[in-house]
Formats: sequence, C-alpha cells, structure tokens
Amino acid sequence: MTTIIRGGTVVNADRAFRADVLCYGDKIVAVGENLEAPHSATVVDAGGQYVIPGGIDTHTHMNLPFMGTVTQDDFFSGTAAGLAGGTTTIMDFVIPAPKQSLMEAYHTWRGWAQKSAGDYTFHVAITWWDDSVHADMGTLVRQHGVNSFKHFMAYKNAIMADDETLVKSFRRSLELGAIPTVHAENGELVFQLQQDLLKRGMTGPSAHPLSRPPAVEAEAANRAIAIAGVLGTPVYIVHVSCAESLDAIARARANGQRVYGEALAGHLVIDDSVYQSKDLEYAAAHVMSPPFRGKHHQAALWHGLQSGNLHTTATDHCTFCAAQKAAGKDDFTKIPNGCGGVEDRMSVVWDAGVNSGKLTPSEFVRVTSANAAQIFNMYPRKGLIAVGSDADIVVWDPEGTRTISAKTQFAKGGFNVFEGRTVRGIPSTTLAAGNVVFQRGELMAEEGAGRYVERPAFAPVSAK
Amino acid sequence: MTTIIRGGTVVNADRAFRADVLCYGDKIVAVGENLEAPHSATVVDAGGQYVIPGGIDTHTHMNLPFMGTVTQDDFFSGTAAGLAGGTTTIMDFVIPAPKQSLMEAYHTWRGWAQKSAGDYTFHVAITWWDDSVHADMGTLVRQHGVNSFKHFMAYKNAIMADDETLVKSFRRSLELGAIPTVHAENGELVFQLQQDLLKRGMTGPSAHPLSRPPAVEAEAANRAIAIAGVLGTPVYIVHVSCAESLDAIARARANGQRVYGEALAGHLVIDDSVYQSKDLEYAAAHVMSPPFRGKHHQAALWHGLQSGNLHTTATDHCTFCAAQKAAGKDDFTKIPNGCGGVEDRMSVVWDAGVNSGKLTPSEFVRVTSANAAQIFNMYPRKGLIAVGSDADIVVWDPEGTRTISAKTQFAKGGFNVFEGRTVRGIPSTTLAAGNVVFQRGELMAEEGAGRYVERPAFAPVSAK
Amino acid sequence: MTTIIRGGTVVNADRAFRADVLCYGDKIVAVGENLEAPHSATVVDAGGQYVIPGGIDTHTHMNLPFMGTVTQDDFFSGTAAGLAGGTTTIMDFVIPAPKQSLMEAYHTWRGWAQKSAGDYTFHVAITWWDDSVHADMGTLVRQHGVNSFKHFMAYKNAIMADDETLVKSFRRSLELGAIPTVHAENGELVFQLQQDLLKRGMTGPSAHPLSRPPAVEAEAANRAIAIAGVLGTPVYIVHVSCAESLDAIARARANGQRVYGEALAGHLVIDDSVYQSKDLEYAAAHVMSPPFRGKHHQAALWHGLQSGNLHTTATDHCTFCAAQKAAGKDDFTKIPNGCGGVEDRMSVVWDAGVNSGKLTPSEFVRVTSANAAQIFNMYPRKGLIAVGSDADIVVWDPEGTRTISAKTQFAKGGFNVFEGRTVRGIPSTTLAAGNVVFQRGELMAEEGAGRYVERPAFAPVSAK
Amino acid sequence: MTTIIRGGTVVNADRAFRADVLCYGDKIVAVGENLEAPHSATVVDAGGQYVIPGGIDTHTHMNLPFMGTVTQDDFFSGTAAGLAGGTTTIMDFVIPAPKQSLMEAYHTWRGWAQKSAGDYTFHVAITWWDDSVHADMGTLVRQHGVNSFKHFMAYKNAIMADDETLVKSFRRSLELGAIPTVHAENGELVFQLQQDLLKRGMTGPSAHPLSRPPAVEAEAANRAIAIAGVLGTPVYIVHVSCAESLDAIARARANGQRVYGEALAGHLVIDDSVYQSKDLEYAAAHVMSPPFRGKHHQAALWHGLQSGNLHTTATDHCTFCAAQKAAGKDDFTKIPNGCGGVEDRMSVVWDAGVNSGKLTPSEFVRVTSANAAQIFNMYPRKGLIAVGSDADIVVWDPEGTRTISAKTQFAKGGFNVFEGRTVRGIPSTTLAAGNVVFQRGELMAEEGAGRYVERPAFAPVSAK
Repeated sequence: MTTIIRGGTVVNADRAFRADVLCYGDKIVAVGENLEAPHSATVVDAGGQYVIPGGIDTHTHMNLPFMGTVTQDDFFSGTAAGLAGGTTTIMDFVIPAPKQSLMEAYHTWRGWAQKSAGDYTFHVAITWWDDSVHADMGTLVRQHGVNSFKHFMAYKNAIMADDETLVKSFRRSLELGAIPTVHAENGELVFQLQQDLLKRGMTGPSAHPLSRPPAVEAEAANRAIAIAGVLGTPVYIVHVSCAESLDAIARARANGQRVYGEALAGHLVIDDSVYQSKDLEYAAAHVMSPPFRGKHHQAALWHGLQSGNLHTTATDHCTFCAAQKAAGKDDFTKIPNGCGGVEDRMSVVWDAGVNSGKLTPSEFVRVTSANAAQIFNMYPRKGLIAVGSDADIVVWDPEGTRTISAKTQFAKGGFNVFEGRTVRGIPSTTLAAGNVVFQRGELMAEEGAGRYVERPAFAPVSAK
Repeated sequence: MTTIIRGGTVVNADRAFRADVLCYGDKIVAVGENLEAPHSATVVDAGGQYVIPGGIDTHTHMNLPFMGTVTQDDFFSGTAAGLAGGTTTIMDFVIPAPKQSLMEAYHTWRGWAQKSAGDYTFHVAITWWDDSVHADMGTLVRQHGVNSFKHFMAYKNAIMADDETLVKSFRRSLELGAIPTVHAENGELVFQLQQDLLKRGMTGPSAHPLSRPPAVEAEAANRAIAIAGVLGTPVYIVHVSCAESLDAIARARANGQRVYGEALAGHLVIDDSVYQSKDLEYAAAHVMSPPFRGKHHQAALWHGLQSGNLHTTATDHCTFCAAQKAAGKDDFTKIPNGCGGVEDRMSVVWDAGVNSGKLTPSEFVRVTSANAAQIFNMYPRKGLIAVGSDADIVVWDPEGTRTISAKTQFAKGGFNVFEGRTVRGIPSTTLAAGNVVFQRGELMAEEGAGRYVERPAFAPVSAK
Repeated sequence: MTTIIRGGTVVNADRAFRADVLCYGDKIVAVGENLEAPHSATVVDAGGQYVIPGGIDTHTHMNLPFMGTVTQDDFFSGTAAGLAGGTTTIMDFVIPAPKQSLMEAYHTWRGWAQKSAGDYTFHVAITWWDDSVHADMGTLVRQHGVNSFKHFMAYKNAIMADDETLVKSFRRSLELGAIPTVHAENGELVFQLQQDLLKRGMTGPSAHPLSRPPAVEAEAANRAIAIAGVLGTPVYIVHVSCAESLDAIARARANGQRVYGEALAGHLVIDDSVYQSKDLEYAAAHVMSPPFRGKHHQAALWHGLQSGNLHTTATDHCTFCAAQKAAGKDDFTKIPNGCGGVEDRMSVVWDAGVNSGKLTPSEFVRVTSANAAQIFNMYPRKGLIAVGSDADIVVWDPEGTRTISAKTQFAKGGFNVFEGRTVRGIPSTTLAAGNVVFQRGELMAEEGAGRYVERPAFAPVSAK
Repeated sequence: MTTIIRGGTVVNADRAFRADVLCYGDKIVAVGENLEAPHSATVVDAGGQYVIPGGIDTHTHMNLPFMGTVTQDDFFSGTAAGLAGGTTTIMDFVIPAPKQSLMEAYHTWRGWAQKSAGDYTFHVAITWWDDSVHADMGTLVRQHGVNSFKHFMAYKNAIMADDETLVKSFRRSLELGAIPTVHAENGELVFQLQQDLLKRGMTGPSAHPLSRPPAVEAEAANRAIAIAGVLGTPVYIVHVSCAESLDAIARARANGQRVYGEALAGHLVIDDSVYQSKDLEYAAAHVMSPPFRGKHHQAALWHGLQSGNLHTTATDHCTFCAAQKAAGKDDFTKIPNGCGGVEDRMSVVWDAGVNSGKLTPSEFVRVTSANAAQIFNMYPRKGLIAVGSDADIVVWDPEGTRTISAKTQFAKGGFNVFEGRTVRGIPSTTLAAGNVVFQRGELMAEEGAGRYVERPAFAPVSAK
C-alpha cells in the first residue's frame, strides 16, 4: 500500500520544512518537495497543515486489573482511541503481583495486547525482589525488547517497592542497559495520611489530594534520583505533577545527572478544584495519583517542558466507569485510581502549549513523540518523519477544532476529565504503519493491527 | 559559695557588654558594672577576656556500647574533658536495642551517667516501634524531662528506623511537644555500597567514605524534612556534613519550615584526605559517620552557621582506642565508628570561626550554647549570662593558645582528630554550677557533681 | 517619673517570661517578679497581656517633599500615629536633591523633625556623587550618629544612583562602618516600561504594577547584593516585595553573605487586585513602589520572616491625600507614590503573623524591633526589655481588637490601605521614654517630646 | 566536484547511524548505506570513524583592532586554522567604535573577511545608541542577514553598553526577530576593582582575575537575563565561565525563559592557576575576559552542557603575540585581552567531554554545531548531515591523537593555552563547501574560498 501526503509542513523535533511524504508498506520511503508517487497511491492532502510523527503515549494502562476491578478500555478500544487522537504508539505496563513471576505476567499482558489497533510496548514493573526477578529482568531485556522497568514507590501493602528493591533493581537495570522509571510518592506517608483522614471522618474524594500532598511526591522523586545518582544510572520519573518534584529533577540535571521527567496532559491543564465538587461522582471520577494540583503547579510543569527539565507527555490512561468508582463511595482510599485521556493528549497539549506560544511546533513534536522515542530507544523508527521510519504519521490541522466530550469520544468509561474543553489543533488524518486509520472524524482502527515494539537496551541518549 | 567574675566582657547571643558577674550557689545572681561582692567571694579576674555561657555539646556518646565494644570515655572522663574545654553541658543519647524497652534503656543510661562531672541530659533514640514505644515516649516526656527523640536512618539490620517508624514517631513527638532529630543517611544505600566495596576487595578505611557519599546523606535529610513538613513538626538534623544536606535544610527553611541543623567541629575543619593515609590505624581512627568530606563542604558548613541555616555545633564525641578500631582491620564496616572532640570544640570553632572573621563573638555563643538551649528548651537556664541562669560560665581568653594533642588531653582514647592544631582562644576558667572546675590548665572536675537536666516539652522556639 | 508595669509576660526576641517592669525617668530600671515600686509610681496593669519593646518602623517618610508635593503626615502627626500603634521609634530618610549638600539636607530634615512626638533617626540617601558627598558621609557618621545610607536604584532622572555611585558609596560605607541600604528596582527598566505603557494609552493606575514587575525589583536586589558581596560590605534591602527578590537574598545569605531584608506590613497582606479597582481614586491611593504583588508573594514574604531571610518589618509610611494623588489622574507616572501604615504595622503583623501561628511572640518582637535595633546599632537601648534600656514599652493585649479605618486613625491623609481589616492584638498602653503616651485608645502624644537617636558606626551584628 | 565519504558512522545531534555521504558541489546530495557514486568521485574512507557536521565556532575575533593593536590571526589564517581543527564556520564580531556608524563598521569587517578560507558570519555589537543605530539594526537584519547583536557589559569608557542601551537594543532586537547576546561582566565593578588593585601596587597579570571575580560576571548575566525576561526576548550569554552565571541561566530557564549559554573550550579545561605563574609572559598570555576560573567552575560548565543549560562551545579566538601582550607589563589592565583556540576546540571538547563519558557523540555534535546553527538560524544548512545541507563535514577519528602545541599549529600568535595537551579524537579529513580542505595533517585551505553566511531573522528555536 502506497500513500502520499502532499503539501504539508513536516515538523520534526529539530525543524519544520515543506515536504511531501511518501509511504510504502509500513515505512516512510521518501520525504521531499514535489515527490512523484504511483497513480495507485492514496493521496492525503495536507495543504495548510502540519505533518508530524505519530504521538507516543508513554504511560497507559489498558485492560488493567487494579484495586479489585478491571479498566474499561482494553487494548483494542484504548489504542483505537489513541489513533483517533493522533497517538500511534502506547507504552503500557506489565504489573506482576508481588511474588508473581515476571515472565508469567509479561506473557499475560502480551496476550491481552494482541487485540491492539495501534503499536504498543511495555514497561515491566518490579513490585518485589528475589533471584528470579533478577534473572527475569535479564530475560526480558535480552529476549523480549524490554528496556524500562517501573517502580511504584506508593501503594503500600500492595505493589510498593521499598528502598532495598529500588537499589537492587536500579543496579540490575544499569547492568542490563535498561532505564528504571518510578512512580514517585512516599507510600508510607500516603498510607498513614489516609488512615488519619479516615479516622477523622474524611471519607470522600476531597480527602484524596490531602493524602498525597506535593511534598509526598517530591520526597520520593528526590529519593529515586538520589539512588540513581549514587549508582550512576539514568532514571525517568513518571507523571511529575508538582513544582517540588520538578525542582528535584532540575537540581539533579543541573548537576549533570541524566534524569527524565514525564508530564500528564491532565496535570498540565486541570487543577485540584475538581475535588471540591459537591457532585461526589464527578470528584471521584478525577481520583488518580498523583492527584490534580493547584494552578501554580501547572505553570511549573509547562516551564519544565519549555526548559527541557521535563521530556515527555503522557496520560496515565486508566479508565474506570462510575459504577467502579463507586466502590469507594464510603472510603476514598477504595476509589479505583485513574482517569482517561489517550484520545485527547495531543490536542490538549497543542492547544494549551502551542496556541499559547509556550511551545514551538518542533518542541511539541519533541514532547509528544521524539523524546519518548529517544529515551526508550525506538528512535528513529518512531518519533521522526524520515526515510526508513515507521509510517506513523499525523496530518495535523492547526485550525481544526473539537469540543472534547465523553459523549463523542471513542474511549470507554463514560467520563472525560477534559469534558467541554474546545481545543484548536486536531488530527485530520492518522496513519499507523502506513494505513489510514483515522480521517476527518472517522475511525478505521482494526483490531489486532497493532504490533509489539521491541526496544533494545543501551539507548544512546542515556548511555554514559 | 560566692564567686565574682570581674572586668570581663559578657558575651550573649544578642550582644556583648562590659560587666561583672556574681554567682551564688549554682546560679548567677547579678550582672552589672562594678558589682559589690562579699569579702569571702572567690574573685576571677576576667580582664581583657570574654565571659560566655558554658558550652553545650548537643551530641555526645559517653560509655556507649556500640559495634560490640564500649567507648573509652565514660560519663566522668567525658564530661570532665568537656569542662576543660569550656563545655558545661552535654546532650547524650539513650539508644535502646531493637525490642528493648525505652524505659529500661533510659534507666540504664541514667545509671551510667551518675558519675558525670558536668551537667547532662538525654535524647532518646527510637530504634523500633510498637505500642510500648508509643507509651514510653509519653512517659519520658511527661515524667522525665526528655523533649527530643533521635532516629537513625542508617545502620540497617541494627538500629535503623524505617519510614513507618519515622512517621509514627514524628507524629508522636508532635503530639507530645518533643522534637524529632535524625541521623540522616540512607541505610539501605550504605549497606549495599558496603557490600559492593567489600566484594570488590576494598576492605580498608579508604572505602568508608565511598560507602557514604554526600548524596546518601542528603537523600535522608531531605526525606526526614519532608516527613516533618507533611506532619507539621519541627525537625533537627544532627551532624550535617555536606553541602547537599545543608541545601535540603535551606530549601525547607526558606519555605517557612522549622528545621534545625547541627555541625560537628570535626566536619568544620577536617577533610576527607585523612582516609587516604597509608597509616591505616590513623585512617581508621577517623572513621565516623557521616565521614569527613571534601574541602568545599567545610566552606558550606561555615556558610550554614553564618546564615542561620545551621544552628548548633557539637562533636559526636565517641572515643574508641586503636585496639578497638582494629576490629575492622580486615573489613572497614567493622571499624567502630566514632571520634572525640568534646574537649576541643569550643576552641576549634572560635579559632576557625571567630579569628577568621566568619562569626562574631555573639554568633559564637549562639552556635555553641544559646541556640541549643533554646531548641531543646533549657533556655535561659543554659545558654545565657543573666540573673537566674545557671552559673555555667567560661572566662574565655581570646589570646590564649593551646596546641591540641592526644598526649595532653583529658579525654581518653589516645587519639585526637585535631592533633597538632594550635588554636587561639581558650577557656582560662570554667565554672560549672557555680564551682570553678577548670582554671589555667588545671582540671578540678568532681565525679558525680553533674546534674541531670530535665527539658520540658513544647519549647517556645519550635511551637507553632 | 516612675511607672511600674505589673503582671504581664515580658516578651523579648530570645524568650518570654513573667515579670514586672519598673521604669524611672526614660529608662527601665528593673525587670523581675513582684517588684517593689514607690507609692507614687504610676501602675500599669498588664495582667493577661504581653509587655514588649516599642516597635521600630525602619522605613517612614514624614514631611517628605516628593514628586512636587509634600506628604500629609509631618513628624508630629506621623510619630504620634506610630505611638498609637505601638511604634515608638521611626527611621526616616534624609533625601538630598542631586547636587544638594548632604549636610544641608540633613539639617533641613533635623529641623522638620523637631516636632516629633516619638523618637526618630535618619538614614541618609546618596543620590549623587562627588568628593563632597564622600566627605559628608564621614561627617554624618562620625559627628551625627548616622550609620546607614540609602540608595535608590529607581527614579531615573531624579534621585537614582547609578552603578558608579553604588560602588563608591558602598565602599565608603564599608570604610566608615555604616551599612548601605537600597531601594531595589531597575530604574531604567521602570522608565522605559512607563514610556511604553503611556504610548499604548495605558495611563491609569492599573498600569503602575505593569511598569514595575517583580523581575525589575529582583534584578536590582541581585545587583546591589553582588556589589556588596564583591566589596565585602553588608547590605540591607528595603521593602522586599516579591519572591524573586527574596530568593536573591536567600541565595546570598546561604553563601555566607551578610544581607538583610525588610518587609512592609502592606506587602505582607495586600495583593495587587487593588489596582484593578474601577474606583480609580482607590487604585491610585495604593500606588507605591514596589507595588502590591500577587498573593503568592505574600506567602513568600512570611516565609522570609520565618526563616530569617527577612529581618525587619516597616511601612514606608508616606501619606498623600486624594487631591495629591489626583496629580496623576491622566498619567499614572505622576501619581505621588506612597501609602500609610505606621499606626497599623504592629497589629497587622501580629494578627496575620502570630494569630495564624506563623510567628511566635518572640519572633514578632524580633521582626518588629529587636532585629532593627541590632542591625542599625540602637540595641540594647531599643528593641529589648531589660535594665538600662529605654522605657519604650508596649503593653500588648492579644485579645483586644480594632477595626482599622481612615475614619478613626490618628494619621493623616484620609486613606488607609488596611481599611476595614479587624485585627486581634493591639496596644493597650504605649510608653515612650518612660511616659504613657497612649492608653486604651487615647493618644497623649506631645509635640517635640521625641528625641533624635544617634546610631554609632560598626554595629556588632554586621562587623566582620 | 563529487565526493563520497564511505563506511563511517554519521553522527547528528539526534542520532548516529551507519551511512555513506555523497557530496556534489557544495551540498550533500545523498546519505545512505552503500550509496553509488560516479567513478570520478573523490572517495574518503571513513571506516571506523565518525562523520560529523563541520564545527561552528560561535565566538571568534579575527583581524580585531583591540586595545591599540590588532590580533595576529586575520580571517585567512584564522579560518584556515579552524578548518584544520574541524571548524568550518566561524561567527565573528563587527565592533563599531562608539559613535561609529554600524553600517560603516559592518562593511569594514566584510572587507577584512573577504580572504577567509572557511565560511563566516557576523554578530554586530551595539556599543552606543542613537536613532541611526536603531535604523542600522533594521538594515542589517533585513538586508544583510544579521540576526544577532552583541552587547558588552564590560569595558567601561570604551565599548560598554549601559542599561539604557541594553533595554533599547534588546527591544529593537525583539522587534526585528534578532537575538541579543551579551558579554556579561559588570564594567563598573571591573573598573573600580582595577583602579584599586593598581593603587595597591598589584600591576601584574595575577591581578587580572582579582579584578573580575565570578560575582562580577554573574551579576551582569543575571541583569541581562532579567532585562530580556521583562521584554520577552530570548537572550544568549557568551563565554559563561563560572558556576554563578550558569546558575542565573538555569534559574531563568527553569522558569520557562529562553536563555542560551556558550562555554569556551578554554574555560572547560584550564584553571586560574595559570595566573600565578612566575613566568609573567606565560601568565599574560592567558589574560582574557572573563578569566580562567577555579577548578570547580569547570565541573559546573560541563554539567551545563550535559543538562542543556549551556548550548554551544566556542573559543573567543583572539590572538596576540608576546610583544603585544607586553604592552601591559607594568599595568595588567593594558594587556590585550585574548587567547586562541579555534584550531583546538573540537578536539579539546571531544577529548575532555566524550572520552570521559560526559557527552555522547550526538551531544558533542549538538554543542559544537547543531545548537549554534539552530539558535542563529543556519540550520539545517549548517549543523546537520542531511540531504541539502552544506557539505561541511568532518571525518572524525576517535582514535587519532594529537599533542597540541604552538610550534605545530596553523594559527598565529606563537602561543597556545592548550600547549602540551594530548587529545584523542581528531579530524582526519575536513570538507568545506564540498572541498577537501584538510586531510591527515595537511591543510589545503584556500584564501577567499569562505562564504559569508546570511542568517535570517526569527529563528524558529527562539520564536515564541
């Protein structure tokens, strides 16, 4: 199958330029002005539009069994929603239960992901430690293209990694050329704050942010960075939500340490007033961790993306419906944590970031795909419009608008944290692996069309 | 007994002024110019000298059973050495073994301390947690005048307090009006770095600082401060040795948090080149934790004292002789940690701090006694020359000199980290509880003359 | 005249304690429990109240000719208003016109100040430079008890000191043992921003803060601190209004530099929304420089006072009436800059600082009088309740309340930036130089009763 | 002319990959594996080597009349030396005398530069201000491809720009889409410190660094950044030499401001001990501004390059011979300021940066050419190996070594600050505009072959 995208402005992380893009099979085969294409080629008109690398969402949870239930979006609906929003690759998480074999968990998730409509790859969580975990990390890196391991510093009595596990796993990652990533929240503090709040009768969702204040996140970020620094490994902090965590990253980076940070689209534009809603269902729908923060944290996160102290944007897409959220109606600690967004991230970041002048189009590409591809070693296959790269391409209409709503979204769960927000800057066409999968509002995602992306160890960007 | 100190310049933390000081019994009863005194009064001539509050060493370990042996200095020799150096009060530590009753440990230490020649008081360490610890903390505060609890974040598999214990104990301290203090080093990192170094054949004392780099200390300081900040309790960081820990303190203070920091005389003037000595006995004699640091950390610590980001000076006096240190000759992790200094702190800090222009005499008093007395609620009984205060007074000769040496010191252990250093600024006379206990080089310390100092909870300086 | 203040809690910067205070003539002659006093003594009942040192307002402009007019409050009404509010000493400014002899200006101000009801002293501004200025600085320090010189980095084409003047005057101050102080705003930026705003038709008071954003202040603060640091002189930054300036101070202090900062009561509690008022007269009444700032700056300033990065509180009392302010009704740059507050500072700082738990009563004393007295070398005459100190004393009723209003104030100008604010914590009695000058709402200030306070050079706190 | 570079690893800022590179005329026409080339093509064997974009030295002074003399290297010898070292483009400075027409100065420099062997372009200095300067800036931007203006904040009484000029020129630059750059040193402080040192009899080169301590540089950097921030223009700080300046940049960047910084190869590896040499000629040969700094500043600068707080590397190549330097033998302020390095920068940065693991090869390209090309809008013509880019290419032999010496260098001046340093990592072949101009030690530079590079305004990287 041949497709030619004509007349647009190609935007890569390093520059923007007028060029046609010719795709054959699942690859880009030519980029240049006035390209010739076979008559049979599908022509996509990109006049007046940008042609950008397909988005990479570095943080999703499809089909996740969590807190006693399973997310609404499975790998098909979730990746399809991503395609509709211009995201062509997701990075999901294999999360073994404590004592569960990593390999077993890995294969379970691979099975669930077979139905994906878009490309996918996995971070694997290290939730416990013994010699088998040490061995399985090696197997995953060497035989299965896993080059990143996730550590939850929160969720005590469940999947929390203590300092011993962090040190051992970070060291093992370094040895293997993989990058450790962390969910940075001090799980002990969260746990005791939760118990306190419950004792004081604060059982509703408004207690949720009180149990996870910025200092709880910043402490953990600082700790993970310190451990990484002492061991000499790079480290990646997922969903940085507050100024204090970002400061920890900036301090370490200014000191020459290789630390990367991820911002969620939600944290960039939504503030913690949502938890004060008298509509408890609405408030509960926003329960995720870290929680939404006060407005000045949003300004800080944008500064992080501008300054290069933050590198990627993601969603932590993890959708639970109202009935599921209701499990915590008498106890906020039992509300399944998670919100959606995989379908909306690209437009939300463009609208709030590029339209406001905070980011250039090239910087937008950097934080929505190129940096992710480099850090996690999928570059230049992903994150770049160039000959030889995957034909994962979004024709981006900077003047197109959409009003986000759960009623019109492709993702499941019946809720959208961006509800009612009108964004300017939307995909007019999405190509995934050379196929037009979304065009002018119509989604043509195919179950099972997504491929598993192997990511080799020793990514150049992180190598010392 | 009546004593009058004539002709000196009284130096308090807030000002210096010419005045005589009249002592009766164990108290100061008059401060003023040209005081009258009974004929029977002992006259101390302070002409051309300063008259300052007796020093408070906030951090000593006399008679300490540690790492399988017991320190050389007991409470008599240790406090007597202090008196010779102008330190009239020590703050020692009750350190219960894990699972040992706090009250039992407390009474054991009280017994050991009966022989003290100078006044003493105790921080009590929280090395484990259960309901009895919670209860005993209350007993200690309410019935025994303990208002500070110590937490070791290092010494894994021994007395290390994990986050759960830290959170519970900090909260309990807050409730009781006591102040938590921490030895800030990430014990897990220390442990794994030690194992690594040993595996790599690095068994000598030069490996000691490699197992405890600044980042290991700064991480723990930051964590303790974060926990204190979240709970709303003040916190005191003992033996801050490096710029990075100090930065964590300065950040928190600048954010309005009540954080206090202590610097050791040794860390202020000795650098880590001592560990490179080919004389392994010499190197081992310097093994303490945190270790001595590179020179730029010394400048940082002085800046901390100048700026008010550090508040007290101490020694961590903990003397082991060469034979004891030899326990670790094949394995640096078995070298008993500790160095002396209780006899030298005042002169070392004056010589390096005041003579160099870094500190004014009033600032010297602030960091050698007044701040300690205020933070730990012994003020104005201690730390001040004023009517009603204890007659713990040092007549300080700013022109007197002494060359520090293990050969001439009163303290035991046969070693001195300040060996050969000539200091200008020494006590010519020390009064403790109204008695002349040291004069012109002669020590008249009396075993058992020291009193236990009760310290009420809810110190005004830390109250919110 | 003898007065005894009975039954109160004396609060000094270092501690609080129950004591009576006996005053004779203009001095405190005894402090202690159950003091005896002659029958003739006036008795002030301080039961249930605090007894604190009279406030020092480090920054006022009485009788100031400025921007073509003269302030409403002269030295009598201004100091009298201060006494009503618990401020017994003001530090005003001699401001020579460029090319005017310093001595001439000094004597002019001394003349104006003769009518003061409370004690007063002068900072002298260095608004230009030549050899006579150099010489007069010496005369002022050596013969007239001036130990601080003020530098306006703003007000281009008027009294602005350029870098050459700053460097020369700072060096001369160092030599003389005086402390340089600065109004930190980059006058060039202010000037050009003003021209721009006027060109764009923004002529109203809402343009005022736009012409003086925080970065303009922070730049100048950083510059003054850098110059002081290079030359080795302490420096004092007046009216620090924003987080960014405070950061510059905190950075320098953390680096061991002796930098002091002053916060205005207004900046601590009023935000920049006042400039958005549709009542242009109301908005203009708030025009002062630096302007009021966004709310997060208030939090920062409180943190500064808590952490010791800021040291004093003041008002920049400088009252213009509505008719005077109207001079700028068509051009905001012509609105006479200034607001009042000398009468309200103590209560505003207590109410917002102590009642909220941000400051202890001792810290309140520190930032309302003791630090000022120490920095400007009036201590222990001022800023302390002790034998020998001036009998400038406030009996402070922590439960008394007052609703601030221009209608009921003693100060002139017909406006109050704190209008309508009800404060808890007010003076019940003020003694100045041993005389009861204010009691239970009644002001007994006497014109001419105030004394000029000489301040010797080489204040101990700033000496190196 | 056709050239094919075979068998190397192409290194761009975003990635490294195996590819041949085909050049035709002055352009790259193909990049790919196993490219075909005409028989006539010159073949360059890059086996085992890297193929990188030609270096851009953002800061040189060829043929500079300065301090009463003219530099040894003219545009031919200087650019030729650059080619020998792998630098194919220099950015030199047009420096009008105060009151001299910008256009006149520009044309003078264009004339001098005709003889260049390598490509060149000009920053134009704004050393004074009037309406003609305002107008000429427009002409230079719109008609002559100048998009950067330089401001000297030092050199009082010569070319120093005061705040008024800075503000006006920065605003004009913003309007024109040009980027202001600054030499950041507070000229007033330098001047007065110089006078002081001379008065105290310190006339030798060891006084030079004392007259320009880090605080003098950091103040100016902070001021320029503040002005840029207030006006909303990006700003570029040339030759950042100390940790304190870098901190000012990092603070502003973390706050979202677009600030760029340049490090000199010399500052990265040479410390201030050179000024202590008893060989005064040697010491004088190192006199440049800012001066070499203490060692910890070098670590800071490397951290700056690693973290992205610094962006470019340069040399400030400005060569004076011993006879010229001798003009200041009795007065260090008369020593012509300047050192060489254009020939050595690439190897010095590789050796100290890449061989040590501080930088990856891609990061090396970023800081030696790509960032410069992007910031100053020569990208992708310069700074990239890609089809359509200029055939300015260096075949980089990572195993080749060279011992730097004035005896063997192509540059003039008879001195080299890197004398005796053996670097590993050298150009084996340099192509400029498609011509082999240097190969295995042999320089084939041609006088006049260099082209003037026009740089359009509104560089995408800096646009908001």
